[in-house]
Amino acid sequence: MNKRNFTIYDIAKEASVSPTTVSRVLTGNPVVKESTRQKVLAIMKELDFSPNEAARRLTKQQTDLIGFILPDITNPFFSQIYIEVEKKALEKGYTILLRNSMNISAMESTHLREFTERRAACIVFMGGRINKTNPDMYEVTEMQEVMSRVPIIMINGKMKGVKSYTIRTNEEEGIRSIVKHLVSLGHSKIALIGGSKGISSADNKLSSFKRILKEFHLEFNQDWQIFSDFSVESGRVAMKKLLENESLPTAIIGINDLIIYGAVKECRDQNISINDFSFVGFDDIYPSDIVYPSLTTVNHNYEILVNEIMKTIDNIIAGKTNKKGKLIDTHLIIRESSKEC
Amino acid sequence: MNKRNFTIYDIAKEASVSPTTVSRVLTGNPVVKESTRQKVLAIMKELDFSPNEAARRLTKQQTDLIGFILPDITNPFFSQIYIEVEKKALEKGYTILLRNSMNISAMESTHLREFTERRAACIVFMGGRINKTNPDMYEVTEMQEVMSRVPIIMINGKMKGVKSYTIRTNEEEGIRSIVKHLVSLGHSKIALIGGSKGISSADNKLSSFKRILKEFHLEFNQDWQIFSDFSVESGRVAMKKLLENESLPTAIIGINDLIIYGAVKECRDQNISINDFSFVGFDDIYPSDIVYPSLTTVNHNYEILVNEIMKTIDNIIAGKTNKKGKLIDTHLIIRESSKEC
Repeated sequence: MNKRNFTIYDIAKEASVSPTTVSRVLTGNPVVKESTRQKVLAIMKELDFSPNEAARRLTKQQTDLIGFILPDITNPFFSQIYIEVEKKALEKGYTILLRNSMNISAMESTHLREFTERRAACIVFMGGRINKTNPDMYEVTEMQEVMSRVPIIMINGKMKGVKSYTIRTNEEEGIRSIVKHLVSLGHSKIALIGGSKGISSADNKLSSFKRILKEFHLEFNQDWQIFSDFSVESGRVAMKKLLENESLPTAIIGINDLIIYGAVKECRDQNISINDFSFVGFDDIYPSDIVYPSLTTVNHNYEILVNEIMKTIDNIIAGKTNKKGKLIDTHLIIRESSKEC
Repeated sequence: MNKRNFTIYDIAKEASVSPTTVSRVLTGNPVVKESTRQKVLAIMKELDFSPNEAARRLTKQQTDLIGFILPDITNPFFSQIYIEVEKKALEKGYTILLRNSMNISAMESTHLREFTERRAACIVFMGGRINKTNPDMYEVTEMQEVMSRVPIIMINGKMKGVKSYTIRTNEEEGIRSIVKHLVSLGHSKIALIGGSKGISSADNKLSSFKRILKEFHLEFNQDWQIFSDFSVESGRVAMKKLLENESLPTAIIGINDLIIYGAVKECRDQNISINDFSFVGFDDIYPSDIVYPSLTTVNHNYEILVNEIMKTIDNIIAGKTNKKGKLIDTHLIIRESSKEC
């Protein structure tokens, strides 16, 4: 523990007295026995404890507040990022407030309002409207309004007309690393399943995928590109549709890991051998090392991503502006689910 | 959206003006055009908008604050509970603050301090010290100190000498439902793996397990009870130890689901058929429906648990005291991993 962080609770613990007693010593309350008073004062001196600072912190209404809006904390992709930001924010003495939007625009509005009213130092924003290829007009206006008072850091999203800080995964590089890996294993028939049209991470991955297939002189087969959604259940739905084709791919890329969990489940339910396909996901959430077969997938370099978020928060709080967007490189984690064709 | 929840942002959206304009209308700023002023006032009337209430909310320093301390939000067991409490808390207009302790006592102290300083209405506490069979003296004292100012609701834990609100899963019933199920499938050789000695959920499950085996006239085999920890990795470690026995059980109960994920992984790594055993977990976290084989496990009745948490929070805020501990029944979810012996 850093010296400047000592509080009356630490002093109390050290002196084996109650925090109330320490507080009484500080306020000069005569109820405290002289021997106790001397002991507490000695420990305060020893620990270089500043009662003024402690009192200031106790009464200060607000430290720098970081608002964090994300769709769903039960999704490991978000919780893995959130928890690291929380840890670092607390170390720095910031207050962090998590809010789940469930990708519902009205809930995002509620949270934006709360953070604006609380005069947050900045808002970290993931999912929802910043992932729409064409957001609604009022969503853009609201973000501009908020941005005029509270800086917003968009993670893996952006919004035309809103000049926010952006930190994004290099999704194109991620897709390239997958295709390269599959080609090296002899695959040329590759499907892309999951995601929804109009959600930028799906739209972007699809256009990257088409571009990269060309680079490798492979053909894009429209029957093997199936939109559904981003959940496990929608992975089953997409896989079911894919399996209705007469000609099938040998490798299947999921828009995210959850899609592949669902796709594998669907194969099992239809008694189709999962060895008939190579599967690759995107996100490297932690169940991907637990499922069977363990999943080859693209890791976001979470540590670098989180460090970049913290650096941006620090800059905003220090009053430095640096609105350039940051692009984070990914790396491919190779596990059991991808194999020679 | 509830009528009483309208804010100047809603009025602004409805009137197609900026929130600043609405604010200016409220404060009687003459910059606003008369036609605009009339339009904004008409919409306020239409929506039954109360500027006083809005102003009060804007300036009010603190709504009722709920502090939520849990070990690790990336663990679905905690995130599944937290997100439901967050949703209901926001509906009721409470402010909720999440803090991760990583089961580190000093971090719990930091968070307790923060919530006390912020004058939280109550603190929901999970994991860490309240799960220790014998907590440290200073942990008890600190909790008593906090409790003298802020009520604490302990979920699935308790602390001798601290008269808090407690809401607990009926773990004994949970273990009974597992043993009953396994016996009905013809199993009599049952192992219990995972958890640490001194952590009450492990200690309690173990003593329940011994008691229930007796009820079913089965023998407890000490070689088949292996403590490790609560993670996937410690599930591998425990399974490895279990497999070193000459005589093996036919069914394996994990202290939680993560333990079984690790145990199954260890079997695969040692080329031991997972069909040699029936596996049952405890918690029913969502990956248990995704892993293969999908896991038979005990569900905490999360909805009832969350409702009970919210009821207790409401009572505390309303000034009603009701310190009786609540016990929540579980139910067994039967999936692929448990089969006839």
